[in-house]
Amino acid sequence: MQVYADNAATTKLSKKALDAMLPVLTDIYGNPSSLHTVGQTAKEYLEKAREDVARAINADSKEIYFTSGGSEADNQALRTGAYLGAKKGKRHIISTKFEHHAVLHTLDALKKEAFDVTLVDVHETGVVTVEDIRNAVTEDTCLVTVMMANNEIGTIQPIKEIAEFCKEKGIYFHTDAVQAVGHIPVDVKDLGVDMLSISAHKFHGPKGVGVLYVRKGIPLISIIEGGAQERGKRAGTENLAGIVGMAAAISEAVENLENNMKKLYGLRDALIDGLKGIERCRINGSLEHHLPGTLNMCFEGIEGESLLLLLDAKGINASSGSACTSGSLDPSHVLLAIGVPVEIAHGSLRLSLSEENNIEQMQHVINSVKEVVTYLRSISPVWEKIKAEEE
Amino acid sequence: MQVYADNAATTKLSKKALDAMLPVLTDIYGNPSSLHTVGQTAKEYLEKAREDVARAINADSKEIYFTSGGSEADNQALRTGAYLGAKKGKRHIISTKFEHHAVLHTLDALKKEAFDVTLVDVHETGVVTVEDIRNAVTEDTCLVTVMMANNEIGTIQPIKEIAEFCKEKGIYFHTDAVQAVGHIPVDVKDLGVDMLSISAHKFHGPKGVGVLYVRKGIPLISIIEGGAQERGKRAGTENLAGIVGMAAAISEAVENLENNMKKLYGLRDALIDGLKGIERCRINGSLEHHLPGTLNMCFEGIEGESLLLLLDAKGINASSGSACTSGSLDPSHVLLAIGVPVEIAHGSLRLSLSEENNIEQMQHVINSVKEVVTYLRSISPVWEKIKAEEE
Repeated sequence: MQVYADNAATTKLSKKALDAMLPVLTDIYGNPSSLHTVGQTAKEYLEKAREDVARAINADSKEIYFTSGGSEADNQALRTGAYLGAKKGKRHIISTKFEHHAVLHTLDALKKEAFDVTLVDVHETGVVTVEDIRNAVTEDTCLVTVMMANNEIGTIQPIKEIAEFCKEKGIYFHTDAVQAVGHIPVDVKDLGVDMLSISAHKFHGPKGVGVLYVRKGIPLISIIEGGAQERGKRAGTENLAGIVGMAAAISEAVENLENNMKKLYGLRDALIDGLKGIERCRINGSLEHHLPGTLNMCFEGIEGESLLLLLDAKGINASSGSACTSGSLDPSHVLLAIGVPVEIAHGSLRLSLSEENNIEQMQHVINSVKEVVTYLRSISPVWEKIKAEEE
Repeated sequence: MQVYADNAATTKLSKKALDAMLPVLTDIYGNPSSLHTVGQTAKEYLEKAREDVARAINADSKEIYFTSGGSEADNQALRTGAYLGAKKGKRHIISTKFEHHAVLHTLDALKKEAFDVTLVDVHETGVVTVEDIRNAVTEDTCLVTVMMANNEIGTIQPIKEIAEFCKEKGIYFHTDAVQAVGHIPVDVKDLGVDMLSISAHKFHGPKGVGVLYVRKGIPLISIIEGGAQERGKRAGTENLAGIVGMAAAISEAVENLENNMKKLYGLRDALIDGLKGIERCRINGSLEHHLPGTLNMCFEGIEGESLLLLLDAKGINASSGSACTSGSLDPSHVLLAIGVPVEIAHGSLRLSLSEENNIEQMQHVINSVKEVVTYLRSISPVWEKIKAEEE
């Protein structure tokens, strides 16, 4: 049985997204910037897609900027907040310890440009509080960036509350909503955020395309200079097929959101029920504020990579954490941030589901994880030591 | 009769590129960074595409960095050259007056970071000389960037000679080869360039994907921070379908290069023969060093935009210059750079052909341009004045 359970890394393109892309790949080949009919037809597709994306998150279409993905959107949002702050003489940025590397590494780059960065704790729950942000704010703070849902453990942050606080303080607020959009309700007006990043391939859209939502009135700063595309804020001929595919995928995801969430909570709870009995395992992050389809666990005494490879041999595709850092020998910065000890963080498993999964697959996952964990522990000197210490 | 003659703006996706993309859009949905089979299969496609692209320009696959397009590649190349120069205390950059805006606007941004920029003349021919570059070089020069073929007038620059000169002087050399690759022979080893930008949609590949070639030994600097994709130099989940489509398109273009060039020279010469007899018209830029399929002309006494719209009504899709700046009322900076007077530059027409065009279409273009120019002049007060002055 084949079980793709790595949907937080990337998803399979939906049929509707593909169907929307095909005519663009074949017939709608114009450059949306060209004045002739072929170009203007392409432009109509572009602007229709912009409206669809805007509707899906309750934005105005003028607030939608197409990018090459979530990472680019994060980079541009953070540089915008930082540079707008610097113009007012403010150079302090607040974020959390468990952001995606697209945020953390951009913050590292900004530090080299003389910005100060405070990364607040995310507690054992994997949830930051407004209080944490309030305590970190100084007179010099220009930008706060907190991810909406964590990509490894799936915990959801109190974005609306943080946005409200930042608004009061006159601080720009950005959220990386790459794991949230299409998975839980995201309404930019209700949330009150200034900037929000989206990646198409996390909700069955194509790879290589994303969105930066920027609230009206905020002067977005370019990180790719050139032509006048995206109202002069993001140069480069538009990835029209990708954009149209993304629009179809986000519309589909939002339309089916309630049903999908219900189904995913059910599948995830079945996983929890089946796996929680394994000796010395833990579920990472609070399940109270949590993405419906993501489950992150640690199993003491084993290496996550071996677990993954043996599950793969059983047809189960999972992850130990973020795909973007797989291959790295370091334990997950997310698990360390929520206080998981290094030696236990090495034995992590992220199962991230989509509505295409089913309950039979969950049973296969449960049986396989149990079997593989038992096997790996049987050959693990670390496990042997743990058991010896128990006695 | 429908005639798409705006291939310098963008091209139609080739059948081979589409066929290469379809399995990726449907079945090869993994994240190339994932360790499991689905991810590793995606990675195999990614690395095969990298090898194909490398082969097409005689590079090593380790010298190929995938980007979201030519603009991003230009931005990253220029920032790399500038920042590497700054580390050695050098802050002077040389380019030309008729580069693409992805270069010119990045240079503007670098000026705000205290870099000095010299834009050399390109003469009436539209060709820069090594002598021009030599005269502009100072002890402080760290980077020279000169486009391989101009996007509006199609003139080809002496890249090999400039690269050789820069190498002697220890100056980084980048070329924007977006209009050249797939249209004329491009061999990075023979050219001796340090960095070279490519855009897939200019040679019948998909939009939203490109390449930055970076010669081994040059430490590329990131402009999009995040995950470890592209050997840590360009973050973001890879646009795998786009990359695979680009690889198929560049392979196809290079394979058919000689035949296509021959055909295009023939079609373009037919256009020239048919159009050169029009009163008070001029061909912009030397035809001696020139892309096979691009022809840029000015017709005195008319507005380029009106010409385009009436040609469009006759099924002919052309441009007055770069698609990236269409809609702007300013005359082309390229035509001004080669000394075309402002009032004449307004009446420009760029016809850019592909191997999908044929000789019957050229006859339709010739007849239509003649007819439309005659009509527009019959209602043009400017033309009336020109004729009155003649008498």
